[in-house]
Amino acid sequence: MRHLLSAGDLSRDEATLILDTARELAQAGARSVKKFPTLRGRTVVNLFFEDSTRTRTSFELAAKRLSADVINFSAKGSSVSKGESLKDTALTLQAMGADGVVIRHSASGAAHRLSGWVDGSVVNAGDGTHEHPTQALLDVYTMRERMGRLDGLRVAIVGDIRHSRVARSNVLLLHTLGAEATLVAPPTLMPVSVHTWPCAVSYDLDEALSKSDVVMMLRVQAERMQGAYFPTPREYSRRYGLDSERFARMHDEAIVMHPGPMVRGMEISAEVADSPRCTVTEQVANGLSIRMAVLYLLLGGSESAIGA
Amino acid sequence: MRHLLSAGDLSRDEATLILDTARELAQAGARSVKKFPTLRGRTVVNLFFEDSTRTRTSFELAAKRLSADVINFSAKGSSVSKGESLKDTALTLQAMGADGVVIRHSASGAAHRLSGWVDGSVVNAGDGTHEHPTQALLDVYTMRERMGRLDGLRVAIVGDIRHSRVARSNVLLLHTLGAEATLVAPPTLMPVSVHTWPCAVSYDLDEALSKSDVVMMLRVQAERMQGAYFPTPREYSRRYGLDSERFARMHDEAIVMHPGPMVRGMEISAEVADSPRCTVTEQVANGLSIRMAVLYLLLGGSESAIGA
Amino acid sequence: MRHLLSAGDLSRDEATLILDTARELAQAGARSVKKFPTLRGRTVVNLFFEDSTRTRTSFELAAKRLSADVINFSAKGSSVSKGESLKDTALTLQAMGADGVVIRHSASGAAHRLSGWVDGSVVNAGDGTHEHPTQALLDVYTMRERMGRLDGLRVAIVGDIRHSRVARSNVLLLHTLGAEATLVAPPTLMPVSVHTWPCAVSYDLDEALSKSDVVMMLRVQAERMQGAYFPTPREYSRRYGLDSERFARMHDEAIVMHPGPMVRGMEISAEVADSPRCTVTEQVANGLSIRMAVLYLLLGGSESAIGA
Repeated sequence: MRHLLSAGDLSRDEATLILDTARELAQAGARSVKKFPTLRGRTVVNLFFEDSTRTRTSFELAAKRLSADVINFSAKGSSVSKGESLKDTALTLQAMGADGVVIRHSASGAAHRLSGWVDGSVVNAGDGTHEHPTQALLDVYTMRERMGRLDGLRVAIVGDIRHSRVARSNVLLLHTLGAEATLVAPPTLMPVSVHTWPCAVSYDLDEALSKSDVVMMLRVQAERMQGAYFPTPREYSRRYGLDSERFARMHDEAIVMHPGPMVRGMEISAEVADSPRCTVTEQVANGLSIRMAVLYLLLGGSESAIGA
Repeated sequence: MRHLLSAGDLSRDEATLILDTARELAQAGARSVKKFPTLRGRTVVNLFFEDSTRTRTSFELAAKRLSADVINFSAKGSSVSKGESLKDTALTLQAMGADGVVIRHSASGAAHRLSGWVDGSVVNAGDGTHEHPTQALLDVYTMRERMGRLDGLRVAIVGDIRHSRVARSNVLLLHTLGAEATLVAPPTLMPVSVHTWPCAVSYDLDEALSKSDVVMMLRVQAERMQGAYFPTPREYSRRYGLDSERFARMHDEAIVMHPGPMVRGMEISAEVADSPRCTVTEQVANGLSIRMAVLYLLLGGSESAIGA
Repeated sequence: MRHLLSAGDLSRDEATLILDTARELAQAGARSVKKFPTLRGRTVVNLFFEDSTRTRTSFELAAKRLSADVINFSAKGSSVSKGESLKDTALTLQAMGADGVVIRHSASGAAHRLSGWVDGSVVNAGDGTHEHPTQALLDVYTMRERMGRLDGLRVAIVGDIRHSRVARSNVLLLHTLGAEATLVAPPTLMPVSVHTWPCAVSYDLDEALSKSDVVMMLRVQAERMQGAYFPTPREYSRRYGLDSERFARMHDEAIVMHPGPMVRGMEISAEVADSPRCTVTEQVANGLSIRMAVLYLLLGGSESAIGA
């Protein structure tokens, strides 16, 4: 692996290596070994064209734990606002000796284009409505930790699938790892090309819930629920929100996931969000391990084992 | 101590331990020992919901001097602006493994609420009009260094007491340490509950000055001097500003303090601000030592002595 | 050297020492020695009153490679916006123990004034239309690496000279190092005092190109090309832009430089920008070495050699 651009690019072995490395790092962390010298002298640039404190912070902390120097290169106030192209920005980062570039961009495909311009490793931290592979990796990591397996696991992904890079990356990765994903959304929030995705499709949350080991709720942005055929927020919440009543009808062992930030009362009720079977904060913790594993494997892979 | 939420929570022994630790760190710094391995592998998050470059920088530098990894988690552009609650932000930081969270928030009590949600140590860096304990600690540290004692020291605190967390934290800490505080302000800038505070109250600056060893001038925000019973800025400056004439009538040994940033010509004249008896820059320097001491004691206290 | 305020202050020996030190650091970097312990425990503050992600990042990375603690002290949201003076900001940084302050400010002379208020070293990272000495140093470094010499080198600097601190710093430094600079611009973009500068002046790009070993194109801001006697952007580009046709008429060995960010199609065509004889990304890489050298010599000069 040189870049991590798409969850769909990962082979089963590669994905499993990332998950296993993350586990090793998490276990070292639990033994209070939190700082690794692996990337000392390496530079990781966080190139965020969209605000995302949460994801940026996770990558920043992951890189620092591996002893890398981290530069936060926000597009605001940068040459980008003076008319500089993404290519010139890339060449600048390249020239500064960036060993890894973590990019978040509003345009689908931005990470892939960037990878053609720089020698360092590119990690896609979200490109438009396309992909967000480290989110999918931390999600499947969380499923594997909680459920003990991925093969045959039944996962419902519920919400604004159409605009969700998280849904797409999860579907691709779950398919690679042998799990069975079902997308659940109102027709207007389902992608036009959904029939080409390696997953099932449903428009009925209650039916999907009864057959799921994992239910992943996505955030729904109210501003996207406008126009003639869109449900109102209240209607959305009634038909596609996970409230206590629906939660009670799920399997006893089934878990609820959410990539955060949650909008309590909209796609998920406060009671469900605070349940011990809701993994939202575990996902954040696992995100740190996954991002450490990805940076470790991409930037420091030639070196000796994680050690400690 | 697990958190530092309020200057009023500190016992005399705890406050003295912080002051003594700060002194030890400052002396090591003077011997060019500026970097300590104490918090290596620990993560300190600066969670600032209000802008404050000065305080944020002081905490950032303090944590870095102790070899901690520092994350600046600004609320702008974060999930907070997407509707995330303080609790969910707290759980996210917790999940990322924050060992310490330094919080600045516009709501009184925010630091206290945060401390109920995270395992790590919470340091209150200013919550609404409530408290700003490290400011009070660096202030009393400065008094002790300059005057050689705190017991019986007479301290006048002058200005917009009503909106000042600095004033409240100082009054509580000075009381604990045996000093005698007097609040001086126009009635409209005095808190309604001031009679419950452990201090004297005065509306006459000239009278208070003649009886003070320390005069602490607070910044007055012009936008708060509006409305029927409020003085105009000019009137305020004339009656409550510290100019050269008033300064000349103070005791020869008395010092002038200010938490910064000063508005020269408003609450303090340029001549007084530049006097060697004005400690404003010493307070900044001492702030670094105090914040190092606080982070050291809260996050690294179980380890061996500061060393160096 | 204690500060780096102006390229014009540097003696030939001092400038050469910086260039040689940068070369030594670049060579160590090429041998994968990228991290130096030289400035461990020292604090470098990036004090940027104007946005410049590119320059700020270069200094930040340079300082981190030397193991300094780096504080980004942006003026936005700082006390500056609450009415604090540059002097009080300086005294604050001083009190926090800043060993070096890198300042970018819109006022010419700001770096010089700052140097009168702080004990630490001040590096001018651009003050108004006055100077930008590290840019000139990285430019001459690039020329020396590419052309093998500086003495007698003929350098044309083309574009908005009037508003360019880059042009001024280059002219002064090239003069000190024995090169021959020619400024090329329309009369309206030439400084009024240009006859006092140690360089030639031309209003004809084609004539200047035929006699140059190095052509440095400056960015032209469209908003400055307004008013009766100013050329339109199209007219500017036709008469002063470097397109393929003009490029073909240059000497075979001549190089094209640009401080970035480039506006392709305006002052430089895309073909020229992407030519191997265009050094724009080398300049960025060299900028890192130069800034490491400057910080090393100013802040760590008394210590042993770079080592590695």
